[in-house]
Amino acid sequence: MSAPKRQKSAKDVPYELIYWPGNPGRGEFVRLALEEAGADYTDTAHAEKGMDQVLSQIDTENVGDNSNPPPLAPPILRHGDLVISQTSNILLYLGPRLGLVPPAEGEDGDPDALYRINGLALTALDGLCNEVHDTHHPMAASLYYEDQKEESLRKSKDFVKNRLPKFLGYFQRVLEGKASGDGPWLYGGRLTYADLVLFQAIDGVTFAFPKAISAAKTSGNYLYVFRLYDAVKERPKIKEYLASKRRQNYLNGIYRHYPELDLDEENMPQSSGN
Amino acid sequence: MSAPKRQKSAKDVPYELIYWPGNPGRGEFVRLALEEAGADYTDTAHAEKGMDQVLSQIDTENVGDNSNPPPLAPPILRHGDLVISQTSNILLYLGPRLGLVPPAEGEDGDPDALYRINGLALTALDGLCNEVHDTHHPMAASLYYEDQKEESLRKSKDFVKNRLPKFLGYFQRVLEGKASGDGPWLYGGRLTYADLVLFQAIDGVTFAFPKAISAAKTSGNYLYVFRLYDAVKERPKIKEYLASKRRQNYLNGIYRHYPELDLDEENMPQSSGN
Repeated sequence: MSAPKRQKSAKDVPYELIYWPGNPGRGEFVRLALEEAGADYTDTAHAEKGMDQVLSQIDTENVGDNSNPPPLAPPILRHGDLVISQTSNILLYLGPRLGLVPPAEGEDGDPDALYRINGLALTALDGLCNEVHDTHHPMAASLYYEDQKEESLRKSKDFVKNRLPKFLGYFQRVLEGKASGDGPWLYGGRLTYADLVLFQAIDGVTFAFPKAISAAKTSGNYLYVFRLYDAVKERPKIKEYLASKRRQNYLNGIYRHYPELDLDEENMPQSSGN
Repeated sequence: MSAPKRQKSAKDVPYELIYWPGNPGRGEFVRLALEEAGADYTDTAHAEKGMDQVLSQIDTENVGDNSNPPPLAPPILRHGDLVISQTSNILLYLGPRLGLVPPAEGEDGDPDALYRINGLALTALDGLCNEVHDTHHPMAASLYYEDQKEESLRKSKDFVKNRLPKFLGYFQRVLEGKASGDGPWLYGGRLTYADLVLFQAIDGVTFAFPKAISAAKTSGNYLYVFRLYDAVKERPKIKEYLASKRRQNYLNGIYRHYPELDLDEENMPQSSGN
């Protein structure tokens, strides 16, 4: 007689990331959390018929199931019976489970940490992901870039001149503040998923606007932001992931490199400090 | 001898909403939750020097305090020692405290409900708030509408023709699905803060694009969405609030009415059903 099978709970299963194959996109924010934690997960980006899995989830006939509303768009996370979407929401769910936020309970428990970290992640996604998408699709997501080039140029100039410095400056301030604690991280002196989000957002912006990011580095105004970027890149599991085939190239996704949209002399920010 | 004073916890204090005076804006999503719950709160929109309180929070010299990172933008919620920003994040914090999500614990506890509700709130805010802002400020938040009228017209046509039907159709589907339960609500057969968010978003879009919303109603494609809107509006505390002076008029905020951006014949969606 064999030993009785252990009854698996509905959540004692790998995480399933459901996202478009072909570019890192918004799925990457979720992947980095899973990779940093060494979590067991599947990813439709690398699955046979991965595209079909995404399409069936966002089909306009999908009304969800008994407990889950349908998702509007990927990334989508399935974990046992749970199906959720929205990048920041997925990270909110994963953060405590993957040890990427301080514990809420116990002697040194920090039950409010999750809200502070979620706020930081949302702000990074707003300014350094959603707004970057709009630099090449300011008029309509359903049109080609070529059909909105003029507006893209105008939008990109504003991004490089005003929005990018605003968001980099904001995160520099967060890192200067006491709530960030010691070391390179955004909150509480320890790595959280907000750091991974900021890393990936800057990595994407660096691909899309290399000249603008180079000028931002040279300015010396955002030293702590780029220190954080470097520190995430050197995390052993992140380093291994970035060198692996699981890391996809940027290609016609949120982060796109159109040289004509990148920084020009006219928009060069004033250097300060050095 | 008087009775010993009860030691107040840091959270045993009113909620403080910190938001621009002058229009409902994103603060309104938070206000409706507080009002529906009958919560004790203060609001800088109605305070002397309310504007100064917002400005000092988002000052570029503000680096936060020992435990809170600085906020980038309002709405901001202060509750005791906690200071958080981002609309969906504030609602995530308030939801369980105000009874606007199902309980996570206990016999019928639904610990995953919060993620489903947060996902719905985020999607409503994306499509029916953030994208609406971009219809009159598609090029730069820092410029006047008058300096981006042509692009606003192009963006608004896409909003009315593609985006608005996409998001209304999505929420109709959510309401048709089993996870919404019985009655008019989005999740679990009971009012949650996601319903309040959807109500306020539709109310704002109705102000900004009255002809487009009227056509959407007439189409018969979104009956459940407008049923939810009506059901929220009839909640006794919401009704009282909407009739009170605390409810501000829409004025040069996220939701603006520029008649030239509203539905024209060319963009009239195909009627289906009736």
